Amino acid sequence: MVKILGIDGSPRPYGNTRKALLLALEGAKREGADVEVLELYKLRVEPCLGCVSDDIKACRYPCPIDDDMKHVYEKVLKSDGIIVATPIYWYNVSGPVKNFIDRLTVFENMIFIDGRSWVEGKVAGFIAVGNDTGAIAVIQNLMSVFNSMGFAIPPWSLAYYTLQGDILEDEKAVLDSVNVGRAVALLAEVLKGCARPPKVWYRADKEYRSFSRLVARKIKEQVEKFLG
Amino acid sequence: MVKILGIDGSPRPYGNTRKALLLALEGAKREGADVEVLELYKLRVEPCLGCVSDDIKACRYPCPIDDDMKHVYEKVLKSDGIIVATPIYWYNVSGPVKNFIDRLTVFENMIFIDGRSWVEGKVAGFIAVGNDTGAIAVIQNLMSVFNSMGFAIPPWSLAYYTLQGDILEDEKAVLDSVNVGRAVALLAEVLKGCARPPKVWYRADKEYRSFSRLVARKIKEQVEKFLG
Amino acid sequence: MVKILGIDGSPRPYGNTRKALLLALEGAKREGADVEVLELYKLRVEPCLGCVSDDIKACRYPCPIDDDMKHVYEKVLKSDGIIVATPIYWYNVSGPVKNFIDRLTVFENMIFIDGRSWVEGKVAGFIAVGNDTGAIAVIQNLMSVFNSMGFAIPPWSLAYYTLQGDILEDEKAVLDSVNVGRAVALLAEVLKGCARPPKVWYRADKEYRSFSRLVARKIKEQVEKFLG
Amino acid sequence: MVKILGIDGSPRPYGNTRKALLLALEGAKREGADVEVLELYKLRVEPCLGCVSDDIKACRYPCPIDDDMKHVYEKVLKSDGIIVATPIYWYNVSGPVKNFIDRLTVFENMIFIDGRSWVEGKVAGFIAVGNDTGAIAVIQNLMSVFNSMGFAIPPWSLAYYTLQGDILEDEKAVLDSVNVGRAVALLAEVLKGCARPPKVWYRADKEYRSFSRLVARKIKEQVEKFLG
Repeated sequence: MVKILGIDGSPRPYGNTRKALLLALEGAKREGADVEVLELYKLRVEPCLGCVSDDIKACRYPCPIDDDMKHVYEKVLKSDGIIVATPIYWYNVSGPVKNFIDRLTVFENMIFIDGRSWVEGKVAGFIAVGNDTGAIAVIQNLMSVFNSMGFAIPPWSLAYYTLQGDILEDEKAVLDSVNVGRAVALLAEVLKGCARPPKVWYRADKEYRSFSRLVARKIKEQVEKFLG
Repeated sequence: MVKILGIDGSPRPYGNTRKALLLALEGAKREGADVEVLELYKLRVEPCLGCVSDDIKACRYPCPIDDDMKHVYEKVLKSDGIIVATPIYWYNVSGPVKNFIDRLTVFENMIFIDGRSWVEGKVAGFIAVGNDTGAIAVIQNLMSVFNSMGFAIPPWSLAYYTLQGDILEDEKAVLDSVNVGRAVALLAEVLKGCARPPKVWYRADKEYRSFSRLVARKIKEQVEKFLG
Repeated sequence: MVKILGIDGSPRPYGNTRKALLLALEGAKREGADVEVLELYKLRVEPCLGCVSDDIKACRYPCPIDDDMKHVYEKVLKSDGIIVATPIYWYNVSGPVKNFIDRLTVFENMIFIDGRSWVEGKVAGFIAVGNDTGAIAVIQNLMSVFNSMGFAIPPWSLAYYTLQGDILEDEKAVLDSVNVGRAVALLAEVLKGCARPPKVWYRADKEYRSFSRLVARKIKEQVEKFLG
Repeated sequence: MVKILGIDGSPRPYGNTRKALLLALEGAKREGADVEVLELYKLRVEPCLGCVSDDIKACRYPCPIDDDMKHVYEKVLKSDGIIVATPIYWYNVSGPVKNFIDRLTVFENMIFIDGRSWVEGKVAGFIAVGNDTGAIAVIQNLMSVFNSMGFAIPPWSLAYYTLQGDILEDEKAVLDSVNVGRAVALLAEVLKGCARPPKVWYRADKEYRSFSRLVARKIKEQVEKFLG
């Protein structure tokens, strides 16, 4: 079984970013993954101090900053895949997502300490949600960053929604989001050596559309319950 | 006289980002500007709460978050131009720069309150410094963001340095940085109606090269004094 | 009087890209500009040969490639401002827009021949149109490119439309497009020294909205006539 | 055995872009791949006509444009992985690379014809080479594009070189390039079901460094022979 970690970079636990992330995680669960959500806005994650600029070997795990990244680090290490869901703030990730990314440098920079990035071979997926343009500007940054840390990226590992409505009502965005979770989970399994590659990555067949709609409805109810 | 605000988004007051910013501000001073540096890493600037997602009119100046942005807001409002200098962290700005940008939304979003962005017509310049690639990825994001808030961008309003050495030893990077300050100050004057447009924007003539070298030496001494 | 050149990078003379460009040019005309459209898909513009990689001084105006850029070069030189309108193809400009940009290197590279970019101080505006996301990814590339060649960028110098309908029916996109033309024309006048800076850049007042609607209707009729 | 197709988007068959691509292909060969280079500048590849804007089903394989893409299409279809090597022209790919990408839409758009992208599950790697900044701006665009077409991206699937010298003399850039080929070949094998995932993706051990140096020397000799 693979573990997929969902990173929620939005301040709204009832917003489209969270909904998209939950859709993806349901897609991952359907492939047998164990999933978990981390809400960055509920954690204290200080900005990176860029120690690496003074001394290439100064940046290493564990990071000297004493904050909630401690637990995040452990969860990232234990995960086989990670799905980053961010709101689009000024054609870019939110501040907490930026801090989260910068603080992951301690894993990547282990290259200079013990010869390998501690996140090499993990799998990544990306979700960007906003009210305006900017989705690809955000996602392309995330792709290049996580790939440069050593993450693999499965086919169609991106989903976005940039309209004003409820993402759960948008069939295409729902299907894309669920498929991100599916793809991340499947590639994580393949790279762990515990499954053969799928014949089809992106599923849009009748059965899967019906599953996606079901999942969207379930999340809608959860959010309504949450909002009281 | 125009006021140019320099935003330092690096944690190292003795690093290349700060040096590049100081170079730019010297370029601005030479054109008669009044300059000031704000060190984001010394301020408490919380992440944007994205109120605008719930209600387009909820995001307005003053921002409800009670932190050091209060003073930053005042300084931005009083400035005619702003130069953002950021270290390149994962092909992107640092976390504090991201928070600073997101929190500026209160000014831009005044469009929906009183019909205009409170930063419209101000001028912006951009500096990105790192040890690896990513300078243009950062700068192009900054350009599109500040232009979308209403800032004007003068010719050659960008400088970067992505090598391992001291930016002050790199003649091209020094000249580019000084010229960013020059261009921002000049356009700010023109747009305030207190000067005619210059015949030449980017100066690389003998006199200006000599001025740039002088300025680089001065900053080198300042930094050395700072480092003790 | 200033001359504003509109570059149409789309193969469809009746499509949203062209419509957006025409909107912008009407915005420019209203400020007294002389305007002209260049349709890249009707011209033969060969790819840049990258001579500069072999010898920094080998790239200079006139470009050795003998094709329709000859006329384009002359028009760019005579213009005071340029508005680039591109369809969004794979989160990027179209191929002909790419060739057009790369071939402009001969002007910028004159820095190494006679000390200055031949396009320094001209003004640029940007329009990106597609059926999906990617607008800002395209526009941010264009901004950083034209600014690096020496173009100035006025406030709000960008417009985009990424929905499936007719841009002329979208009030916000129409207003943004018209304002791009307005801003480019106004800054070109200011930088030529023949006008004072405007008090307001982006106009969304009643009179201007009414003008924008009028212009949209006029373009709609033109396109319908063209389509027969 | 897997087939890896190398796309050379540079006009210089002796330049750093080509050298980097050859390095990558040697890395792929070492893992048992069959490799081939396509030189875009030697082919006639017309710009995409954007048929999809008029009718979503109008864009399908075979593309109605009659040019050298015919052969390229066949080679892409037969390949298991593709490595795109582009010079950095204005923080972006070269014109021929842009046309190549846009013309691949016929494969991706088969989603709307027969339910799946014809390139889904293939693997992609990216190389960007220039004299200035812009590498990540280019690579992040390529990543998001190929991933959106259905390509998978292995860990560390990017290499770049943006200095003035010979890439073959730069140990880091050589190692990165060779590893791109290695990673693309390995993931292609895994996704084809004919190999288990490697324990290590990026190799920087002594044996591999020695292999990389050997390969660099071999390519140096080839290029010198070519240049006569």
